[in-house]
Amino acid sequence: MTTTPVWDIFELRLSGPATGNPYLDVTLEAHFTQRGRSIRVPGFYDGEGQYVLRFMPDTQGEWHYKTRSSLAALEGKVGSFTATTPLKGAHGPVRVANQFHFAHADGKPFLCFGTTCYAWTHQPLELQAQTLNTLTTAGFNKIRMGVFPKDYPFNTNEPLHDVFDVGADGKRDFDRPNPVAFRHFESQIGKLRDLGIEADIIIFHPYDRWGYCDMSAEQDNRYVAYLAARLAAYRNVWWSLANEYDFLLDTKPMERWDRFFHILGENDPYGHLRSIHNGDVRMNYDHTKPWVTHVCIQNWDVKKTPEWRDAYGKPVVNDEPEYEGNIFSAWGNISAQELTHRFWITALRGGYAGHGETFEHPEDIIWWAKGGELYGDAWKRIKFLRELLEQDVKAGLTPLGGTTSWPWSRMSAAEDGDVRYIYFGEHQPAQWTTGLPLDDGDYDVDLIDTWAMTIEPAQRIAPAIPHPTRHGAVVRGGKADAAFGVRLPGRPHLALRVRRRR
Amino acid sequence: MTTTPVWDIFELRLSGPATGNPYLDVTLEAHFTQRGRSIRVPGFYDGEGQYVLRFMPDTQGEWHYKTRSSLAALEGKVGSFTATTPLKGAHGPVRVANQFHFAHADGKPFLCFGTTCYAWTHQPLELQAQTLNTLTTAGFNKIRMGVFPKDYPFNTNEPLHDVFDVGADGKRDFDRPNPVAFRHFESQIGKLRDLGIEADIIIFHPYDRWGYCDMSAEQDNRYVAYLAARLAAYRNVWWSLANEYDFLLDTKPMERWDRFFHILGENDPYGHLRSIHNGDVRMNYDHTKPWVTHVCIQNWDVKKTPEWRDAYGKPVVNDEPEYEGNIFSAWGNISAQELTHRFWITALRGGYAGHGETFEHPEDIIWWAKGGELYGDAWKRIKFLRELLEQDVKAGLTPLGGTTSWPWSRMSAAEDGDVRYIYFGEHQPAQWTTGLPLDDGDYDVDLIDTWAMTIEPAQRIAPAIPHPTRHGAVVRGGKADAAFGVRLPGRPHLALRVRRRR
Repeated sequence: MTTTPVWDIFELRLSGPATGNPYLDVTLEAHFTQRGRSIRVPGFYDGEGQYVLRFMPDTQGEWHYKTRSSLAALEGKVGSFTATTPLKGAHGPVRVANQFHFAHADGKPFLCFGTTCYAWTHQPLELQAQTLNTLTTAGFNKIRMGVFPKDYPFNTNEPLHDVFDVGADGKRDFDRPNPVAFRHFESQIGKLRDLGIEADIIIFHPYDRWGYCDMSAEQDNRYVAYLAARLAAYRNVWWSLANEYDFLLDTKPMERWDRFFHILGENDPYGHLRSIHNGDVRMNYDHTKPWVTHVCIQNWDVKKTPEWRDAYGKPVVNDEPEYEGNIFSAWGNISAQELTHRFWITALRGGYAGHGETFEHPEDIIWWAKGGELYGDAWKRIKFLRELLEQDVKAGLTPLGGTTSWPWSRMSAAEDGDVRYIYFGEHQPAQWTTGLPLDDGDYDVDLIDTWAMTIEPAQRIAPAIPHPTRHGAVVRGGKADAAFGVRLPGRPHLALRVRRRR
Repeated sequence: MTTTPVWDIFELRLSGPATGNPYLDVTLEAHFTQRGRSIRVPGFYDGEGQYVLRFMPDTQGEWHYKTRSSLAALEGKVGSFTATTPLKGAHGPVRVANQFHFAHADGKPFLCFGTTCYAWTHQPLELQAQTLNTLTTAGFNKIRMGVFPKDYPFNTNEPLHDVFDVGADGKRDFDRPNPVAFRHFESQIGKLRDLGIEADIIIFHPYDRWGYCDMSAEQDNRYVAYLAARLAAYRNVWWSLANEYDFLLDTKPMERWDRFFHILGENDPYGHLRSIHNGDVRMNYDHTKPWVTHVCIQNWDVKKTPEWRDAYGKPVVNDEPEYEGNIFSAWGNISAQELTHRFWITALRGGYAGHGETFEHPEDIIWWAKGGELYGDAWKRIKFLRELLEQDVKAGLTPLGGTTSWPWSRMSAAEDGDVRYIYFGEHQPAQWTTGLPLDDGDYDVDLIDTWAMTIEPAQRIAPAIPHPTRHGAVVRGGKADAAFGVRLPGRPHLALRVRRRR
């Protein structure tokens, strides 16, 4: 019997007629059943008379399927396969876990450290290979990437493939997806999966000269359903309805965005993560809507991360806290120090920041859109942060205090179980006590230089005992607020890690 | 005839009985008249049978006065003096000018660059002399200073003088101000005046172990009126009702703060600037109230400066955007780079930031409270900024765009007449065009390194012409948004100055 590892893809490829327009005319689905469970899986037309069903089993054992189709040739096909133990390194799709965090289906925590290469799959193949090679060691576990090519400053080249067919009249036919383009796209998703990288697939974006922006509502809806049918069986898929959806509101009003979410819900049997990304900071989508799994925003003002957690009650992924680089766009020219700083602030306020790199390049090969090589200095520090947190963070980081609580409105600190981190950022105290353990137990306290990427034991000292202060009739302080303090070198961008010895 | 320069102090000292408690029992005022004008000037008791009236003339020529008093001995005294041309360097009290800015009475722009030494007049005299010596060259033109001594971390020493008399029972008598303390305090205000420094006098604060916090409403009101009578004739006086008034709301509810403003209005004939300073960032006083002349706040989040301008419609003085230092308090341990950065952001968003320095010191002699020496690195850069702006800014800086406008929500820029400044801060573009002149006229464009304090001509290049972008149906860009661009070195904390050649 055919076998497929759990969280891998069982593919059923059926032959049928290639006449007419099967994309419009033919319905195809299958029900995959195991004991009492039945999962409806939509199929799709892959060109040249090929009709495809893809299924990602999530439990081991025998699965049976039966197709249904508007075409007699595809109707009532039955079969079965056995789902086997997952491949090494396969932990299943990423889900929301512990309200504000993520974990793989097998429970492995997923601390999100994403980067952005919007149009990397539309570049020459050599460049795509280089991008994958860079990703192998860069330390990112998520990448934002568009289905459509990009027409934007520094992005003027034609894509490798047309996403929809170009007819004899030279016009794009949005009723005919180009199977070659999609086969390429999904093969790159597969390569990312094999690198352990989540593909945050951007379905729409406004930066277009090919007409993809101007598809009709019906065409948009059909395209979203097609993506779900085609790609949902890849365990590393995340759905991002748009980059900067708000710049498309003139042609795609809000109810259509809501509907796109519904279509994904109807056609993605696995419930992959679903988000939508704003352009203007005032135009966050209402992430409280139940079909949005997590908050995906762009906002440089990362100290607000706890506000977004509070506002939406979901994981916060700030995918554009501005990018490291030197291009003329203000969102793409912050220093490596600043981006590293924003990653630490975001993480220690209970969110997840996203990376991008936008350095001028003689041939406009800029990581944020085309991939290639990384030229900056932030990515190494971000990798260092990821590795540091992955040592100890299990449930996810909960920030100490909110945006107005003392002193964590000014600095950033978070904890998870027995581990606590304090990030001083632009602050440079020569000693520190607040937030350290209340008892003098068995703790390791380490001093972390977030830029030099060093970790060394912090020098313990007596806790600071401030003179009491009187606020009206209320006397405050005059006692230490932790059992001990640490001596610090008095320079910015340092952090502390406090762990109970295990 | 007696002469007094305009904006200097004409003092009338009358002798009377020292029996009873003249502070409570005797009323004294005078009307100073010149042609049709009549100005009511309250007097005060200076101890030892001395009753004093102080008047600051604002116009030249002959002034006549006549006293009124509840004491026959002080009633109906008449006299006159001639107000002569102002002393060199005297420009009169600072007023609000151009809605969001300040100017002296003679029209000289006042670009506010303040520092903070809360309790410097309560320190040993040698230390006070050192503070004045430091201020001579430090480049600040305003200082925040309290009438009362301070009881706070790093501030545990007894003050030089009791502000109110200590009776035979060892208790402070809040019905008897100590003339020695006030004579000393005003002599220091006079020395600041002679250095060209405004004294931002903090009337109340919560950090107290002497009982000043617990005076009755009547005692508070009388004390405020006494300060006005005693100090208002100093041209460099500003009134700051409190440092961190909100921490005193439990004993002094809001209506009392409003009343203090009224009392100042009733007893300060010159209408010196009046403000009140919050502690908690959520507790800004309602600065739209008509008796508040300008916004005085503490808030580290300086990119919000345009929001405060919009909210209150008055000059914004952010006197505590955190301090340079290394003490354990989060408000007092940011780096010099960060404080310099916050000054530039505040200035180029149309506000005025305040300086403070809080470095650990073996004897707790910390500038922010006690004065002494400056140990940090920000003050030099702040002085550089002041000198730079004073070259060209006349009416005051108007920010380009608000907190949400592109790209000035991310970077900071402002203009005044023919001069415009752009501060890139954490941004490091390799070239820049936006905000530069629309015509290719006769401009000097200078590149400023805000940390190295260098000014050099910027290298002009062709303007950036970005590829057009399509937002839905709207095509944007594709053309330069200024007549020329500049090449930049691609590192953070740089600024541009653009001036039309005159």
